Amino acid sequence: MLINEMTKDECSAALARASFGRLGCSLDNQPYVVPLYFVYESDYIYSLSTFGQKIEWMRENPKVCVQIDETIGTAGWLSVIAYGLYQELVEPRYKAERSHARQLLEKRSGWWQVALAERQLKAAEHLVDPLFFRIHIDSLTGLRTVEDK
Amino acid sequence: MLINEMTKDECSAALARASFGRLGCSLDNQPYVVPLYFVYESDYIYSLSTFGQKIEWMRENPKVCVQIDETIGTAGWLSVIAYGLYQELVEPRYKAERSHARQLLEKRSGWWQVALAERQLKAAEHLVDPLFFRIHIDSLTGLRTVEDK
Repeated sequence: MLINEMTKDECSAALARASFGRLGCSLDNQPYVVPLYFVYESDYIYSLSTFGQKIEWMRENPKVCVQIDETIGTAGWLSVIAYGLYQELVEPRYKAERSHARQLLEKRSGWWQVALAERQLKAAEHLVDPLFFRIHIDSLTGLRTVEDK
Repeated sequence: MLINEMTKDECSAALARASFGRLGCSLDNQPYVVPLYFVYESDYIYSLSTFGQKIEWMRENPKVCVQIDETIGTAGWLSVIAYGLYQELVEPRYKAERSHARQLLEKRSGWWQVALAERQLKAAEHLVDPLFFRIHIDSLTGLRTVEDK
């Protein structure tokens, strides 16, 4: 088995197939990784969350990454990483973008249950509406296995 | 659905069930996330790799994390994150630990194929033996969903 670098188009296609991956953020050079449901569209990854550690960290340091992987057959795999910048879709500045994000994300209704659950956890502290955010992708790279001939 | 914090024992049990997760590392506050096969044993996560970006970054900044998640039923999930410090198991200093890591990891023979594949990718540049490393876990936290009653 060999590993090949994926083209940008292959990375993009893999991101478009995915709706779940892991978000990496970092504060004072301490990395933090959390599962993330998202929608990928052109140069952006859209998602939502309630307030919590990842939002705090991304506000402090907007340099983030999103990683997805797939299995291929029995032993193969691919892994794609998107590096980009966090943008919180707050009104009024991002009114149109926030509305667009909501529309994209509403198509995946199950996810709202996750946001709601988080809200209940936080209820005693800060009851907040879901925050919409997007990641502006700066670069996209990926590796995938190929059968050795 | 509610989200509860997991106890340290629950986090530890989930890590012990897992053999695959994501490693987060960071350089100049840019996070990087890659899939990771590992073996967890007491306060350490053991793994192997060939030389590449993650090894370079972890040598520069040993503050890393490993994240694993599981689905529970149809909509539930748990996610555990271990923060810790990267230790490269180089001889002679870590001779015994390196040998222990090799024994633990050899039990999962499929993984060697991944390491070998990477080696072939790198063959034109630096042909290197697999590097064994471990992460000394400093803290372990997790969240899991519970059914709302």
